[in-house]
Amino acid sequence: MTVEAEAHTAAKRDINKLLRPRSVAIVGASETPGSLGASVLANFVRNDFAGDIHLVNPRRPMISGRPAIPSVEALPDGVDLAILAIPRVAVVETVKQLAARGVGAAMIFAAGFAEGGEEGVADQVEIGRIAAEAGMVIEGPNCLGSVNYLDRIPLTFIDTEIAAPSPGGVGIVSQSGAMAAVLAVMLESRQLDLSYSVSTGNEAANGVEDFVEYMIADAKTRIIAMIVEQFRDPARFLSLVAKAKAAGKLIALLHPGKSSAARESAATHTGAMAGDYKLMRAKVERAGVIMAETLEELGDITELAARCPSLPGGGTAVLGESGALKALTLDLAEELGLELPVLTDSNAPELRAALPEFVPVSNPLDLTAQGLVDPDMYYRTVAALFGDDRVGTIFAGIIQTNPATIGIKLPPFLKAVREFKSPKPVIFAGVDEGAPVPGDWIAQLRAEGIPYFPTTERALRAIRRIAAASEQDAAVTDAAPVAVAGLAAETGVVPEYKAKALLGPLGIPFPKGQFAASVEEAIAAAEAIGGPVVMKAQAAALSHKSDAGGVALNLVGADAIRAAWDKMFADVARYDRSILLDGVLIEAMGARGLELIIGAKNDPQWGPVILAGFGGVTAEILQDVCLLAPDMTQDGIVAAVGKLKQAALLHGYRGSPALDVEAVADLIGKIGQLLRGEPRIQELDLNPVVVYPKGQGAIALDALMLLG
Amino acid sequence: MTVEAEAHTAAKRDINKLLRPRSVAIVGASETPGSLGASVLANFVRNDFAGDIHLVNPRRPMISGRPAIPSVEALPDGVDLAILAIPRVAVVETVKQLAARGVGAAMIFAAGFAEGGEEGVADQVEIGRIAAEAGMVIEGPNCLGSVNYLDRIPLTFIDTEIAAPSPGGVGIVSQSGAMAAVLAVMLESRQLDLSYSVSTGNEAANGVEDFVEYMIADAKTRIIAMIVEQFRDPARFLSLVAKAKAAGKLIALLHPGKSSAARESAATHTGAMAGDYKLMRAKVERAGVIMAETLEELGDITELAARCPSLPGGGTAVLGESGALKALTLDLAEELGLELPVLTDSNAPELRAALPEFVPVSNPLDLTAQGLVDPDMYYRTVAALFGDDRVGTIFAGIIQTNPATIGIKLPPFLKAVREFKSPKPVIFAGVDEGAPVPGDWIAQLRAEGIPYFPTTERALRAIRRIAAASEQDAAVTDAAPVAVAGLAAETGVVPEYKAKALLGPLGIPFPKGQFAASVEEAIAAAEAIGGPVVMKAQAAALSHKSDAGGVALNLVGADAIRAAWDKMFADVARYDRSILLDGVLIEAMGARGLELIIGAKNDPQWGPVILAGFGGVTAEILQDVCLLAPDMTQDGIVAAVGKLKQAALLHGYRGSPALDVEAVADLIGKIGQLLRGEPRIQELDLNPVVVYPKGQGAIALDALMLLG
Repeated sequence: MTVEAEAHTAAKRDINKLLRPRSVAIVGASETPGSLGASVLANFVRNDFAGDIHLVNPRRPMISGRPAIPSVEALPDGVDLAILAIPRVAVVETVKQLAARGVGAAMIFAAGFAEGGEEGVADQVEIGRIAAEAGMVIEGPNCLGSVNYLDRIPLTFIDTEIAAPSPGGVGIVSQSGAMAAVLAVMLESRQLDLSYSVSTGNEAANGVEDFVEYMIADAKTRIIAMIVEQFRDPARFLSLVAKAKAAGKLIALLHPGKSSAARESAATHTGAMAGDYKLMRAKVERAGVIMAETLEELGDITELAARCPSLPGGGTAVLGESGALKALTLDLAEELGLELPVLTDSNAPELRAALPEFVPVSNPLDLTAQGLVDPDMYYRTVAALFGDDRVGTIFAGIIQTNPATIGIKLPPFLKAVREFKSPKPVIFAGVDEGAPVPGDWIAQLRAEGIPYFPTTERALRAIRRIAAASEQDAAVTDAAPVAVAGLAAETGVVPEYKAKALLGPLGIPFPKGQFAASVEEAIAAAEAIGGPVVMKAQAAALSHKSDAGGVALNLVGADAIRAAWDKMFADVARYDRSILLDGVLIEAMGARGLELIIGAKNDPQWGPVILAGFGGVTAEILQDVCLLAPDMTQDGIVAAVGKLKQAALLHGYRGSPALDVEAVADLIGKIGQLLRGEPRIQELDLNPVVVYPKGQGAIALDALMLLG
Repeated sequence: MTVEAEAHTAAKRDINKLLRPRSVAIVGASETPGSLGASVLANFVRNDFAGDIHLVNPRRPMISGRPAIPSVEALPDGVDLAILAIPRVAVVETVKQLAARGVGAAMIFAAGFAEGGEEGVADQVEIGRIAAEAGMVIEGPNCLGSVNYLDRIPLTFIDTEIAAPSPGGVGIVSQSGAMAAVLAVMLESRQLDLSYSVSTGNEAANGVEDFVEYMIADAKTRIIAMIVEQFRDPARFLSLVAKAKAAGKLIALLHPGKSSAARESAATHTGAMAGDYKLMRAKVERAGVIMAETLEELGDITELAARCPSLPGGGTAVLGESGALKALTLDLAEELGLELPVLTDSNAPELRAALPEFVPVSNPLDLTAQGLVDPDMYYRTVAALFGDDRVGTIFAGIIQTNPATIGIKLPPFLKAVREFKSPKPVIFAGVDEGAPVPGDWIAQLRAEGIPYFPTTERALRAIRRIAAASEQDAAVTDAAPVAVAGLAAETGVVPEYKAKALLGPLGIPFPKGQFAASVEEAIAAAEAIGGPVVMKAQAAALSHKSDAGGVALNLVGADAIRAAWDKMFADVARYDRSILLDGVLIEAMGARGLELIIGAKNDPQWGPVILAGFGGVTAEILQDVCLLAPDMTQDGIVAAVGKLKQAALLHGYRGSPALDVEAVADLIGKIGQLLRGEPRIQELDLNPVVVYPKGQGAIALDALMLLG
């Protein structure tokens, strides 16, 4: 077991000591207003902490009227948590002393560790080592602490007041302490109940994964809202997501680092080097995480997930009161890909009966200003939509105007929800953001499980995010991992002819061909193949064959082969004198077709992933590619490839025949088996893969493999 | 002068009678609570309307304690405005009577006109006719009325209370009455001062253009916020935008109809058939309108435009307090294309001096939580940025937490803005939306010209929208319109050989070629051209030459020409027996190159526009095209083409030579001259245009022209 893995095991056992301590020590206790130590103590006092509080200060016997002890050594046995409100320089030594005293957990606020140069890195590693050795839980360094809302325990220097023990609901796990605090404020202002909020900082010993695991096991946490800049143990996180899913819990994630500028900036502030955003995203979305693009959206998604009786999904019915808003909603729905079931006078008789004659049934509905004189219409409309199987989610974008107006409109919504107790979510947004809506009305909506949004745009975006996550393909193929006979003998870059020889037997389609170490072998190979052939120079060191003059097309007859051989060896030598060719590959010329690129890599962090997309210069500029998991089903792969921007080209665009997407999916599926069976394959490139009309297959013209 | 144009002139003169009436008549006055008539009267009373109010009701001599007259005929002379709170059926007759009594303006709430079938359409046309004849201003039908905030005059049945005459600022012009009301609520909740809010409804006589013109002339309106589903007079609107720009006024527009579904829905609810969204957008943006994508964004843009001392633009400096927020801002900035000037310790000494040592200079800045102990740092930072010429806009995304915390952080911002009175906008957003920030603090920010946003995302989006509008290319070419000699003789579809003969002399580059009416002429033409030639069948009715077998490539020698001629005439006859070929075009085979498509159309509503983009099937799927005005400069065209998704292909991608973008721009410029000089050209297609390496030009292989 590695040191890191040991720390994880310890964490799992003992995070209660950190988040639900029965006794705490404040190391660096102080009564100077605004100091860390004073703020931590004030929080305990303000929230009536029931456990023992030990104040450690070498210079003062009394602090704020409480006795203090001079050192960590003087702590009694069995202290659960020590909060280190001390400067960076004293941290390592103090952690050592705490470990010696058998303290269960430590929280370190001080910054200047992994993010602060070599010495800081070394100190942080040392903290991790001590924690692993002692089985100690560590939060931080460079963190803002945690809050346990369930038990009213504030473990932070930020002024915190928890009015009453929370019934629980949303747990916050964030590497950034500022973001954890910000998100807590946002969610509390939406009257959402929190269970825990944890900021992990530099994660010297315990990382977000530990706290996610803890919250999955916590009966009072249903949703985990995360802000993470880098997962230190992606594989473990992915398995936790699966566990959360099985437990019916939901994980929403905001992950900065989409842009290269953001990734660069990450290195400077938490010591976390951000990984590849797209790869991370593909992996966590496949596992079931709901991704938020902005902090605003993380709050919006969390509100929906926490409040709705069941998650929004299926088709959305939209209730509005204006034609212009209807048009705007149609625009946004198209942009987002939000499904709006088609409802008409003839196909929705119950809805028809609910509406006044002059309001046609449609989706979005334009109820006009009629609700002001016939507010019961809202009740009838919602009731009819509860009974309509095409509708999974009901969304109302309502003009609020002023207390009197909204006071007319809301009661029928509340009545419908209270009466029917439908599992279908009803979601409410004001069209006129900022209208003076009494807080009491909003509270009533929320109490009935109706999320309230300030604008329709935000509500629709959040609905779509959650619906997309529920539509996420999670199916896993039956196809077993496969091993490649003979791979063990290879290492590093495997040149084309060897890669093809190794992979061909697995069913990956390559052109008919043969390796030739001499010109005579080449001539014989061409004869055996028949027809015009291509000749390709072969050497592990030659990665850009075409640039080096290492490809000759359309060769017919011995003379042509001989001439091409001579020219090729001369050209490659001129290109790079250090490259020694193994020989050439002689292959049948393939028929032309649509070119795709299919590649794979085994990321050291996230594991294997397959890339598929359109080949050629245009596609390279447009980045028209998708990332696929290696264990997807044939159907899943076909669907994913069908979402490429240029997918129309595969389906018989403008009278050209539909192409053999199934063969492509089959090929991708085989690469998946291969990646799962041979973890030594670090990279694989099949470029191009030519696709032929349906039934005629696809064929990889080139192959390059990199082994670890 | 058309009837419509006459109505417009009348409108210009007399909109004061509608929006600033000295005397009003309420036709259909009532005291039934909730009735239109009663609500309109209550609004006048509530807001202390100082002018005469005439109540018209055929059945009651007294209404709410005021005398009523039985009919419009009984009105005194010189009534400015009649508000029609009557059913649809009585409207046309009443308008006639009002015209006869010389009433200056009428406001019609009733619906069921152009949006309600044939009879409604006819009635609406009749209202327009009466208005034009009588020089009467009409608002509606199917409108919700207007509000004049400057003079406290509520002209609507929606409960309205104007506390005090407004100093003015933002005018609202919306076709949708609901949206006008909603936007007013949104802007008032942001403490923005309004001048007028007008809903034009079906626009029987007066449209949004009239009210925009009125507000441009109004000294107290600086910004016009519009919600429009269709402009009825686009050319007039565009000239008004130019006028607004010259007057230093700004127009922000929300225009539903991006999606086809929205365009279809428009037809059913206001009688407005939405036009082509993209074309509209290209035209109005070029003219200087700031486009909003959502209602939320329209409010956000209006706040920035109304409040900032000068418009946000140039590079934005971002002040934040967290590394994660910095990374999120970098992500969003990249997505939006927001310019963040690079600021470093070495290149920004004044900023360096303003910060504590452990905070590195960067952009975005991560000021950490230091502001809590050293709030003056915000003052120093803003002061340093005021003095930095690279920075045009200062944005602060601040963690608000609670009243105490925000109470520490805001004063230094206010102090900096008050002291320096810099024209640079300072924009403020809370990171933790919903934090309990006292309204008084927000009001103080706003009073100092600091817009306040609930989230950083929204602020940055709005900043980018406005900056993009200020970067909009508005330069107009010197190149004069050109006429085409011989065009008058042509009509309808002009076949390729004629189009090339007409356009070639203008300098539009085509391959060397010659029309041939007989096979002997074709052979002679090929000889004269020299080298391999292409033969293309010619007839106005033959729009898809290739499909009909009407193109033969790479012909060399008389025999080849003769064979191709026979085959082509036979193939075309087989394709469509009704097509009679004029002959063939013999042209030099062009060298291969990158293919673009360049087209143009003269939209009956919006006028001429040029489309340019990448040719071929892939580009067709990806819609990689841009719309260009016909009066752009060479530089403007080069810049616009450079923004195509695949523009990298033009600039020498992957070692291929940079292509002759200037030649493409030159060609587009010539088409612009042509469109401006020959309004009869309805459509023009040059597809493909082949582009060669820089200095070697571009050449249009095909040409098709449609004349009106």
